[in-house]
Amino acid sequence: MSDTRKIRVTVWNEFRHDQQHEAVRAVYPEAIHRVIGEHLRSEAPVEITYATLDQDADHGLSQAVLDNTDVLIWWGHMAHAEVRDEVVDRIQARVLAGMGLIVLHSGHKSKILMRLLGTTCNLRWREVGERERIWTVESGHPIAQGLPDYFELPHTEMYGERFDIPTPLQTVFITWYQGGEVFRSGVTFERGNGRIFYFAPGHETFPIYHDANIRKVIANAVQWAAPRVDRPIPNCCKVEPLEPIPPAE
Amino acid sequence: MSDTRKIRVTVWNEFRHDQQHEAVRAVYPEAIHRVIGEHLRSEAPVEITYATLDQDADHGLSQAVLDNTDVLIWWGHMAHAEVRDEVVDRIQARVLAGMGLIVLHSGHKSKILMRLLGTTCNLRWREVGERERIWTVESGHPIAQGLPDYFELPHTEMYGERFDIPTPLQTVFITWYQGGEVFRSGVTFERGNGRIFYFAPGHETFPIYHDANIRKVIANAVQWAAPRVDRPIPNCCKVEPLEPIPPAE
Amino acid sequence: MSDTRKIRVTVWNEFRHDQQHEAVRAVYPEAIHRVIGEHLRSEAPVEITYATLDQDADHGLSQAVLDNTDVLIWWGHMAHAEVRDEVVDRIQARVLAGMGLIVLHSGHKSKILMRLLGTTCNLRWREVGERERIWTVESGHPIAQGLPDYFELPHTEMYGERFDIPTPLQTVFITWYQGGEVFRSGVTFERGNGRIFYFAPGHETFPIYHDANIRKVIANAVQWAAPRVDRPIPNCCKVEPLEPIPPAE
Amino acid sequence: MSDTRKIRVTVWNEFRHDQQHEAVRAVYPEAIHRVIGEHLRSEAPVEITYATLDQDADHGLSQAVLDNTDVLIWWGHMAHAEVRDEVVDRIQARVLAGMGLIVLHSGHKSKILMRLLGTTCNLRWREVGERERIWTVESGHPIAQGLPDYFELPHTEMYGERFDIPTPLQTVFITWYQGGEVFRSGVTFERGNGRIFYFAPGHETFPIYHDANIRKVIANAVQWAAPRVDRPIPNCCKVEPLEPIPPAE
Repeated sequence: MSDTRKIRVTVWNEFRHDQQHEAVRAVYPEAIHRVIGEHLRSEAPVEITYATLDQDADHGLSQAVLDNTDVLIWWGHMAHAEVRDEVVDRIQARVLAGMGLIVLHSGHKSKILMRLLGTTCNLRWREVGERERIWTVESGHPIAQGLPDYFELPHTEMYGERFDIPTPLQTVFITWYQGGEVFRSGVTFERGNGRIFYFAPGHETFPIYHDANIRKVIANAVQWAAPRVDRPIPNCCKVEPLEPIPPAE
Repeated sequence: MSDTRKIRVTVWNEFRHDQQHEAVRAVYPEAIHRVIGEHLRSEAPVEITYATLDQDADHGLSQAVLDNTDVLIWWGHMAHAEVRDEVVDRIQARVLAGMGLIVLHSGHKSKILMRLLGTTCNLRWREVGERERIWTVESGHPIAQGLPDYFELPHTEMYGERFDIPTPLQTVFITWYQGGEVFRSGVTFERGNGRIFYFAPGHETFPIYHDANIRKVIANAVQWAAPRVDRPIPNCCKVEPLEPIPPAE
Repeated sequence: MSDTRKIRVTVWNEFRHDQQHEAVRAVYPEAIHRVIGEHLRSEAPVEITYATLDQDADHGLSQAVLDNTDVLIWWGHMAHAEVRDEVVDRIQARVLAGMGLIVLHSGHKSKILMRLLGTTCNLRWREVGERERIWTVESGHPIAQGLPDYFELPHTEMYGERFDIPTPLQTVFITWYQGGEVFRSGVTFERGNGRIFYFAPGHETFPIYHDANIRKVIANAVQWAAPRVDRPIPNCCKVEPLEPIPPAE
Repeated sequence: MSDTRKIRVTVWNEFRHDQQHEAVRAVYPEAIHRVIGEHLRSEAPVEITYATLDQDADHGLSQAVLDNTDVLIWWGHMAHAEVRDEVVDRIQARVLAGMGLIVLHSGHKSKILMRLLGTTCNLRWREVGERERIWTVESGHPIAQGLPDYFELPHTEMYGERFDIPTPLQTVFITWYQGGEVFRSGVTFERGNGRIFYFAPGHETFPIYHDANIRKVIANAVQWAAPRVDRPIPNCCKVEPLEPIPPAE
């Protein structure tokens, strides 16, 4: 990927809450995906595409759309089961080939994240609007660039440990909750040639995606997850013997 | 788990090659699963159960069998697709709850390994009976106990990099092949409470499971993968607020 | 190591606070090392040796003592600089050869831990006796065996992130503090053939080492860190060509 | 760091072999550091500074030089012991603050690498000019960008496993040697805010640093290791209580 080409980001939103719940519309009248996308545009050199669950039979994620996506951002919550397995297969293949994937908040139970991680991604949760303080733990990580030692969200949904994920490659952020829990709230993984970032904040009834630090994290993550290597994963297997090696002289 | 109780090992074999191919019967007349199981019995304190693909509708892996299994050993090759998804779900759930899983050789393309790792597990391969030299890399790992700095198999199927797996927790062995390839041939992962070991050697037409070092590795792996923690993975999610914390005095 | 032989544990204590500060004597009249050792004896099959900074020129850690130690437990605070470099060299060599090392609390700034990790091990701290809640994050890890989802210490010294350590092999415990910080309070590393566990709780003016959960963690860690492999690290380097490999048939 | 600013690279060479041994002068008449630096200039946007052991009392690495270095490349072999500990302290502090470090070939026994990794970095070696084939294992890693599935060096010094290093963050390359060994020849680590890459190829009597693939790896590594985060490591420790958190509404 050229350093100067814009990163092609597709922001996917289940887009049900935004339409069905007045509380969500009150916070994000323009819908969550558009909020994330517009903010991203102001933070980093990106081209944004939007896609939603009910857009078409591919949930807006045809092969052509995915082939032209460097980084896919995923927000879903109440309709994970309605995402078609064929589309999940397609996303997985693209991640393995190098596409970046950023999964937000309740996307922890998305088919695509569970598929890539191999675990339930279950966690403890509680929705009482408590305060969240996010600590920057891997302070040298590109996703932490420009973030303070810690930052806060005044009202958040609690997502707590034990979070059933494999040991992350790196745990960039750990959250402290007012109610007494902790959470590995920003974690990285790699699968095939693709990079994955899960970021916990983002409940739909709090204006979290308008927060400057949250926006910064997402913008950094997009740049970190953008593919730098153009290389297919091996999909054929049988090989001929290599050239005979000349005997040592 | 008590330290003195025997480890309950279920050895699963696809058991097609062994019946259909004379070349395999010549090497393992008693079938691969029985060879592995009998050797294991002589190396470690275990109780062995056998299970095979065509045994019954559960491939011999009913919930009851799995619930009484500490470590599942998996050998499959030509019929991965015939393993029912429902059984794969059941195995995955048991691994996440703490059951150990040892996947051998061509099991790299088994549904259960791909399910747990999230990748294709593709690799380069070649079957010309070349020599394999296995280097002990993580020399302090329990699976390496009693193994020399390196050991050899005179004839092997080549499995070479790029092996499409996530970065292992630890790479215990790396193989050198006469034909010029290398391979991360003994790698560990953890998913949920369960430990996973993939070990590459074991082609069905070479007497590899009779090799003393190979037997040692499998016996060590069984002991390493046996669950030490009796703890369910979180499967319900919503929690009440914790007890209020008294103000600091 | 035989499974039935007792694990030989040496508990090292700086042993200055215990003598100089009445507040510490009030909590641990028998000295911290003896408290840790006596509790350990009641939890696991161990042989205990004690060693202290001012005991002799080797701080009680002669080559003979270390050669007969499977796991070394380290508690130090105010006199890290007085530990002789030659003794640190000796401990490091034994860890690389396979000896387990458990570093407690203020030992984060010990020479031996910084030597093995390569970082400053700096952290934020505050001593106001606030409440600490310790979450079990890697619930399948042997060190978590028998521990609940979380447990508490009513009064503790706060050790907070950013903790300047390399990414741990596994983060077994994460702490929540009443004052708003989080901490990776139980982390594992491996160096050479040796296993290392750092465990944060343990301030000298609170009766933390009498706590049943803390005692359980230390006993589990001793068993996890005990060497299973009897293998020297490579210390000579130049090798002759290996036996020529016969051409493939 | 601005994306458009040139990366400031300091190439350090022990610079003894180059002057004392005719065989080295024959391969690198302009000295190893200048070869590495000039090639790098043609591959990536860099500003190059050179420094050598005997240049001055700081080995060319004063605080001012290091403060203006984004990435330090290290080549040393016969005089590791002559590098002053005070300079090693200074380099370590800069790495922890975010400076990248690339250690080449026989630098595996440099004081700075052993200091940062905490192990002996010992390995098996043999110098018979055998063939080396380097396999790209982490094919999605930025350091692998543009590299083929494998590439070869016709004559090399053998560096073989067991290589006494901590488990790397990622093993980007694994080498196959004609003589029968394997080696984790390209490995990454992180310490503090700094990134570290060790790359094994580079014996002084073979023209390895002129090889196009080797040059590509080094150029990629420089870009990967360049700091993206401008953040001091925590060096003071005691903190005041945070602002009281308002009770949940």
